[in-house]
Amino acid sequence: MTGSASPTAIVGIGETEYTRWGGITEKSQFQIAAEAIRNALNDAGLTPQDVDGFTSFSNDANDANLMQVALGVPNLRYTGMVWGGGGGGSCGAVALAVAAVQSGQADTVVAYRGLCQGQSRRFGRANTARTHNNWTFPFGLLAPAQMLAMMVRRHMYLYGTKSEHMAEIALSGRLNANRNPRAVMHGKTLSKEQYFAARMIADPLRLYDCCLESDGGCAVVVTSRERARDLRQKPVDILAAAQGSGAGWGSGPLGSHNMPNETYTTTNSVALAQDLYGRAGVGPSDIDVAQIYDHFSGMVIIALEDYGFCPRGEGGNFVADGNIRWQGGSLPINTAGGNLSEAYIHGFTHILEGVRQLRGTSTSQVKDAELCLVTGGLGVSPTTGMILGVS
Amino acid sequence: MTGSASPTAIVGIGETEYTRWGGITEKSQFQIAAEAIRNALNDAGLTPQDVDGFTSFSNDANDANLMQVALGVPNLRYTGMVWGGGGGGSCGAVALAVAAVQSGQADTVVAYRGLCQGQSRRFGRANTARTHNNWTFPFGLLAPAQMLAMMVRRHMYLYGTKSEHMAEIALSGRLNANRNPRAVMHGKTLSKEQYFAARMIADPLRLYDCCLESDGGCAVVVTSRERARDLRQKPVDILAAAQGSGAGWGSGPLGSHNMPNETYTTTNSVALAQDLYGRAGVGPSDIDVAQIYDHFSGMVIIALEDYGFCPRGEGGNFVADGNIRWQGGSLPINTAGGNLSEAYIHGFTHILEGVRQLRGTSTSQVKDAELCLVTGGLGVSPTTGMILGVS
Repeated sequence: MTGSASPTAIVGIGETEYTRWGGITEKSQFQIAAEAIRNALNDAGLTPQDVDGFTSFSNDANDANLMQVALGVPNLRYTGMVWGGGGGGSCGAVALAVAAVQSGQADTVVAYRGLCQGQSRRFGRANTARTHNNWTFPFGLLAPAQMLAMMVRRHMYLYGTKSEHMAEIALSGRLNANRNPRAVMHGKTLSKEQYFAARMIADPLRLYDCCLESDGGCAVVVTSRERARDLRQKPVDILAAAQGSGAGWGSGPLGSHNMPNETYTTTNSVALAQDLYGRAGVGPSDIDVAQIYDHFSGMVIIALEDYGFCPRGEGGNFVADGNIRWQGGSLPINTAGGNLSEAYIHGFTHILEGVRQLRGTSTSQVKDAELCLVTGGLGVSPTTGMILGVS
Repeated sequence: MTGSASPTAIVGIGETEYTRWGGITEKSQFQIAAEAIRNALNDAGLTPQDVDGFTSFSNDANDANLMQVALGVPNLRYTGMVWGGGGGGSCGAVALAVAAVQSGQADTVVAYRGLCQGQSRRFGRANTARTHNNWTFPFGLLAPAQMLAMMVRRHMYLYGTKSEHMAEIALSGRLNANRNPRAVMHGKTLSKEQYFAARMIADPLRLYDCCLESDGGCAVVVTSRERARDLRQKPVDILAAAQGSGAGWGSGPLGSHNMPNETYTTTNSVALAQDLYGRAGVGPSDIDVAQIYDHFSGMVIIALEDYGFCPRGEGGNFVADGNIRWQGGSLPINTAGGNLSEAYIHGFTHILEGVRQLRGTSTSQVKDAELCLVTGGLGVSPTTGMILGVS
């Protein structure tokens, strides 16, 4: 981190079982969130007595102050949520935790996300509770797939991006999930034929282009790098964590598609990417492995461009050339299976997999990985990201 | 601020008209919030192009990302909300802004609160949307007044606190409001006879013990002290801003009343007060003027004890002795009229008045005021506070 702010690290990760939406019926979403937190603290060798902050994003319903009472946290000195809807905010929960530690407002902060879509609502459906969506509903933009399909279609129009490119993201992720016993799709292979035979959800997005809808919980423990040295796990340094909502295409909440001109195609993550690289003091070519928020496969192609792994418009060819594959790829992505094939806990699973890669414990481990990029969803405001490192 | 974190300041304040709930009908709550932000930026000599962060609290419905689009903020790098319900969080919005600046995640953050209870719901009524209230509703604890009346009643039982003491808070606040043209109760005097003749809302809380229900908006601009030097206004330093939820009485969200033993009476602000004083490097006797969240007059008495202005149980006598009066008091409080008589924008008006006192522009100015304590609501989690200073 540039400037005088003291360095921070992730010292514990925790998760629960992941299921298809509606799969968790014996426990409440709140219990699931508490379980993920407890698992993360156990992983770090800490207890709730050591915690003094909680963060999350996207209106997490598992209230921090009730969580304090439930877990027995003696003094909660910091609570914060990224302000906005959607999985764009996942890394922002960690960024808020970093800000808490660096400002001295808290020492040990757990960022978490509990999500049981079977107990609340399916995110893939239209959200009639958001009044600003009234502006898009009359035009058939009801659900996230329909809204973001427009971005993907425009990328295809401008740059010749193809369905085959998107298929590559789905297939690569599924192969990673097949190596990951935690993945909802662990035992289910996916062929290119199956991909193309699947039904269209929102043209050009087919079924396997769309993230899962899942139940489960995730948590990570953030503290100062200094404190991290005394704890159980090898610390994973947070080199940069940030939010960003630029003024380009895809800024504003889902469904607010401002296009400055005919040729402009990018998302709110361009400014964010520059911010992250600048703060971490690294560039795209330094990144060993990336966990790219895959709400929809086509958005991953745009993300690869936004984060500078290839020139604008080259994302399709970049994936077609095998670059994102675990085996032989120059930039393996979504090594646990991603939102498409591991689980969709609003993107938080990507954070855990980023930590595992740098601990050397992934089921699709990238050899000698020292720098990992993790991103929240593009086209959702705010979008967020972070760069993790070990030395 | 202790430690290596760089100092921050409030460089602009803004507000809209304040009315009784339902009084603002020509503008939406979102417009009101935007207007308050614009006024705060004007006050600072800044424009939306200078802003890169927004913070708020208590599920502020005026979405930061829509606000970005509405005001034309080019790159929103930080959004955060204090996680929890109620006006306990007001100063926490500023604390999140401080954390943003100190961590380098943003440079210029506007903390704001837009609240038009006439367009959403009256906060004084039962909130059936909060499922954990199901545990208290069957016992008649429906609305905040009923929940916090129990705390006040216990304080009376243990320490002999009287209705006369609460009346003093209501009357003192009203006198301050009568000097403040912005106050909803500006033109309305209040006598002790009127106070006692008013109807009981929730024993022992009478009508004038309860905060107003208002429409309006507030905003403050936070940046680094270094940047503040170049701006239009005399900067007001944020010596400390923090959240706190201790394990004592009144911890947990409204209605979660854990009492460790028969004699324990305090709220979640005790730990917070120690945190604030420690970080600011000052003590209660150094404070020149205080803006104490007055959701209910009796809670102000407990706050005065929690923040160390008098010993436990002496709050009633402290106010009866005239200490909180603008004229001749040792610790004038709520000099704009407070939530009881100026307006209830969820406590945010207290922040603005704290700044005005240190600028020397209050309508009930405390001579040579250099240190001001501002608090969020007690008995609500998280509660928050801050210490402002000028030198």
